[in-house]
Amino acid sequence: MSGKDFESLEKVLETYVPEAERREVRRLLFGKELKKLNLPQSAIDASVEQDFDLKGYVFEASPEQLRPPRTVRVGLIQNKIVLPTDAPVLEQIKALHKRVGEMVDVAAMCGVNIVCFQEAWTMPFAFCTREREPWTEFAESAEDGLTTRFCIQLAKKYNMVVVSPILERDEIHSGTLWNTAVVVSNNGNVLGKSRKNHIPRVGDFNESTYYMEGNTGHPVFQTQFGKIAVNICYGRHHPLNWLMYSIHGAEIIFNPSATVGLLSEPMWPIEARNAAIANHCFTCAINRVGTEFFKNEFTSGDGKKAHHDFGHFYGSSYVAAPDGSRCPGLSRTRDGLLVTEMDLNLNRQVADKWNFKMTGRYELYAEELKNTIQHDFKPNILKE
Amino acid sequence: MSGKDFESLEKVLETYVPEAERREVRRLLFGKELKKLNLPQSAIDASVEQDFDLKGYVFEASPEQLRPPRTVRVGLIQNKIVLPTDAPVLEQIKALHKRVGEMVDVAAMCGVNIVCFQEAWTMPFAFCTREREPWTEFAESAEDGLTTRFCIQLAKKYNMVVVSPILERDEIHSGTLWNTAVVVSNNGNVLGKSRKNHIPRVGDFNESTYYMEGNTGHPVFQTQFGKIAVNICYGRHHPLNWLMYSIHGAEIIFNPSATVGLLSEPMWPIEARNAAIANHCFTCAINRVGTEFFKNEFTSGDGKKAHHDFGHFYGSSYVAAPDGSRCPGLSRTRDGLLVTEMDLNLNRQVADKWNFKMTGRYELYAEELKNTIQHDFKPNILKE
Repeated sequence: MSGKDFESLEKVLETYVPEAERREVRRLLFGKELKKLNLPQSAIDASVEQDFDLKGYVFEASPEQLRPPRTVRVGLIQNKIVLPTDAPVLEQIKALHKRVGEMVDVAAMCGVNIVCFQEAWTMPFAFCTREREPWTEFAESAEDGLTTRFCIQLAKKYNMVVVSPILERDEIHSGTLWNTAVVVSNNGNVLGKSRKNHIPRVGDFNESTYYMEGNTGHPVFQTQFGKIAVNICYGRHHPLNWLMYSIHGAEIIFNPSATVGLLSEPMWPIEARNAAIANHCFTCAINRVGTEFFKNEFTSGDGKKAHHDFGHFYGSSYVAAPDGSRCPGLSRTRDGLLVTEMDLNLNRQVADKWNFKMTGRYELYAEELKNTIQHDFKPNILKE
Repeated sequence: MSGKDFESLEKVLETYVPEAERREVRRLLFGKELKKLNLPQSAIDASVEQDFDLKGYVFEASPEQLRPPRTVRVGLIQNKIVLPTDAPVLEQIKALHKRVGEMVDVAAMCGVNIVCFQEAWTMPFAFCTREREPWTEFAESAEDGLTTRFCIQLAKKYNMVVVSPILERDEIHSGTLWNTAVVVSNNGNVLGKSRKNHIPRVGDFNESTYYMEGNTGHPVFQTQFGKIAVNICYGRHHPLNWLMYSIHGAEIIFNPSATVGLLSEPMWPIEARNAAIANHCFTCAINRVGTEFFKNEFTSGDGKKAHHDFGHFYGSSYVAAPDGSRCPGLSRTRDGLLVTEMDLNLNRQVADKWNFKMTGRYELYAEELKNTIQHDFKPNILKE
């Protein structure tokens, strides 16, 4: 039962742990018990036919006197690449458009208002190779590239906000590359873009070879269904990044990612969930699935032999809520669509209870952080 | 199988999940498999006789060429109060000294170098009552109170650093109360004190009735066994608090706490562990155990009837490492001593691999955080 074959923690618990104990195990692992979302039979049938995992959960909030519920349905899509990595670039892109487009059709059947795809969803995660060609050819304009135009169609067709993380080429700034999420409103307008703020240089994630730290700050997108932000992949390791999206008003922060088992899997259930707790908001962690094979071998800076893949992307996409609860994750091995219905009123309800923003002492930290980055910083160390 | 009777998640997994799957479950839940620490029979016997949970684990690091291993043994103690809450104050304090002192004897048998007790360890967690008397009588001088003198004796006797979180009365500043951890060096000198930086106003934790946000900043204590810091209880919800201890150089951050099941239990395994990951350091989360009964009833601001206790303190103390791994927790229901041997070289090894400090962009955040606290702050919200 090794990493690649192990479907999910949730499945094992369901299989072996008796119901009496399982309730308590679920409470400890996932917080409160969530209602399953009632999904239409047509969507369930389509997911079986198209061979992907379909799950749905509800995050409820208490009724309030002055605010009606602010219910939104969010869809997260995780998927394998469709064609081999040496297929022609345009064919690879179009095959992914087709696959993910069909999953969006199912999301629409489930009443999804906002959908988010995985990081660099139109391409294999080829940055491990350090090759330029053909990978940089996958880069597109955020404003009017092929993929953005595809997302605009989906958005209009289904009255759905689409968050589309791509490799961006910025033609008006010397053709530089960026790791960027494009946000398309449900009316089909490009609301804007949000670039990955923190770039890894770890293991096979040689991404700083291709693009630099984002320069779009911490934008929040006011959609018809709520205020959203996008913290791309490695940014989830940086609590300040989450905090700043939240301070700018994000109610849901998406974390489209690409990460593999041996490197990060024990961290995966921790970081986005911690961010939901610490910032009184919903967080949505999405990871791709499968193993991607590259024709030319590459090394990983770990003394091991050159090889053709860098391990298993373990999926396990999930949503975490501000009250510390989370839903079970999608499969570790299969494509999947996770639909969660969330009442955004929960954010303020939890904030008013726990008060982390009120007790945050940001004045103190702004000052202290500024001091610590000075060259003559003297750490506050007490000695005998 | 309700909260009070459920011994631990770890126990359930061991009981029901077959070994083949359990390995993978453990990897997903706890990161890498940790070696069990070989504890002396005398310690095991003593723990049985004195009826407390004793566990030991090893966090290893890779060998380096220039630095020898920097191995330290850390002991965490979780315990119930000993006498009823209406026993005379001094008797309650002395009974806790006796109980915890005996557990420290066992820690010494296990070769512990640094021991940390739970938050406000010399008293019941009586702040739920909002009564002044007799609870404020538990407050002591950090520098030379009864409890500090007791800790000095232990430190000298066992060549052990003692972290002692107490209710402090600061006589030289108008007798104000503080929630304070006193750090005593292995030579028996008071190295200094660290006050709780973030004070809860949540549920029954009416602590701001008694003491204010700490004014000692983020001190780090250079001990013979490594650089340590103390992030008390509610401070674990604040990622900036952990960050700042780490930036000042802490290699191990203790989080002595007092927290109950329904309020925080699903958050418990997340927050200290996230801090270990995000800051490339070890974190040690300690929670008290048991239910504390108070003679006078009190209300909880939740519309429910007045009552005499505020729920089950669920123990579950654990240690998390910078590589995302953690050890199984102590019992949810019993007193316990958790001994972990950690090679502090792991911190820099993980930091050099993951680079969160290098990629942290603190200049950007110091500036942005300063802007966000201004009265005329304009959140960066993009609209249609």
